[in-house]
Amino acid sequence: MDPQVRAEAIRRLNYIEGHIAGIRRMVEEDKYCVDVLRQTLAVRRAIERLESLVLAGHLRTCVVDGIRAGDADRITGELIEIFNLNIRRTGGDEG
Amino acid sequence: MDPQVRAEAIRRLNYIEGHIAGIRRMVEEDKYCVDVLRQTLAVRRAIERLESLVLAGHLRTCVVDGIRAGDADRITGELIEIFNLNIRRTGGDEG
Amino acid sequence: MDPQVRAEAIRRLNYIEGHIAGIRRMVEEDKYCVDVLRQTLAVRRAIERLESLVLAGHLRTCVVDGIRAGDADRITGELIEIFNLNIRRTGGDEG
Amino acid sequence: MDPQVRAEAIRRLNYIEGHIAGIRRMVEEDKYCVDVLRQTLAVRRAIERLESLVLAGHLRTCVVDGIRAGDADRITGELIEIFNLNIRRTGGDEG
Repeated sequence: MDPQVRAEAIRRLNYIEGHIAGIRRMVEEDKYCVDVLRQTLAVRRAIERLESLVLAGHLRTCVVDGIRAGDADRITGELIEIFNLNIRRTGGDEG
Repeated sequence: MDPQVRAEAIRRLNYIEGHIAGIRRMVEEDKYCVDVLRQTLAVRRAIERLESLVLAGHLRTCVVDGIRAGDADRITGELIEIFNLNIRRTGGDEG
Repeated sequence: MDPQVRAEAIRRLNYIEGHIAGIRRMVEEDKYCVDVLRQTLAVRRAIERLESLVLAGHLRTCVVDGIRAGDADRITGELIEIFNLNIRRTGGDEG
Repeated sequence: MDPQVRAEAIRRLNYIEGHIAGIRRMVEEDKYCVDVLRQTLAVRRAIERLESLVLAGHLRTCVVDGIRAGDADRITGELIEIFNLNIRRTGGDEG
């Protein structure tokens, strides 16, 4: 991972970890379910933005280098896997 | 929140917090981006399953009680808000 | 379904059907994959907004009436099912 | 688009178009909202599977060829855009 992307990813993961700890405290203090759900939805979006950052770094470095180095099959296979995990397809053909 | 749902939610949030810490360590150790993304996608699914648990508890208790107590407008408004946050609509009318 | 919600839902479904037909023509004319994907993503968002409209109508009418009529178990079970389908959980327990 | 992928995409788009028309008829006949939502959720998943098919074709052909031809910036920019549309980030920086 590019050093700048890595530093930013670590910064965000620390923030996300704190956010999750805050949600746990909300549940321990028996806060209203709807307020808990608002926070879990916010933390999921933060994780998606982190994924966008990591994926952009991956595309600009590993993907370009890998394809130039003749490793296209593995590289494209991994990207399809990530996209399919994102839409929650679990195995099977593309039908 | 129902005590059983709360205990289970706390248990899962502890697990999710540890999972996020593990992902942070992967990034610090400069693991392969694709492996990092596999883990962030897994943790997002764990948060979604937690939301399902909390929402089910909310529907069975607060929603039923609230509607019976004449508080239907607030209750249904909150559920629409949660659904819209889930599909990431941010404000505006239903168009 | 409330007559106003139904009329609006039909209007949107006609629009969505035309959008899908337009995407099919794009593929037949061999348009660039990325442009096709931009359109399929836009049509998915239009379907999600339709779901938000239908769900809001459902909550304000069937859910409130059903719970008042003592049908809370079925009503809440259906809402949990819809939420779980939305996050693509297919069966199993809430773990 | 690869001819085989294109033929399969057209076949699926025809099916999806018919599915949407079927949902419109359900609404016209005033079917139960929850049954309508089950169908809209199913059609969204069918569109996601179509996207997976088109994206896989795109990665194996345009992306590999484009990067080899020195067009990496445009190619990776488009993939990031598609991923961000998928998680519904609309503009702004990656924060």
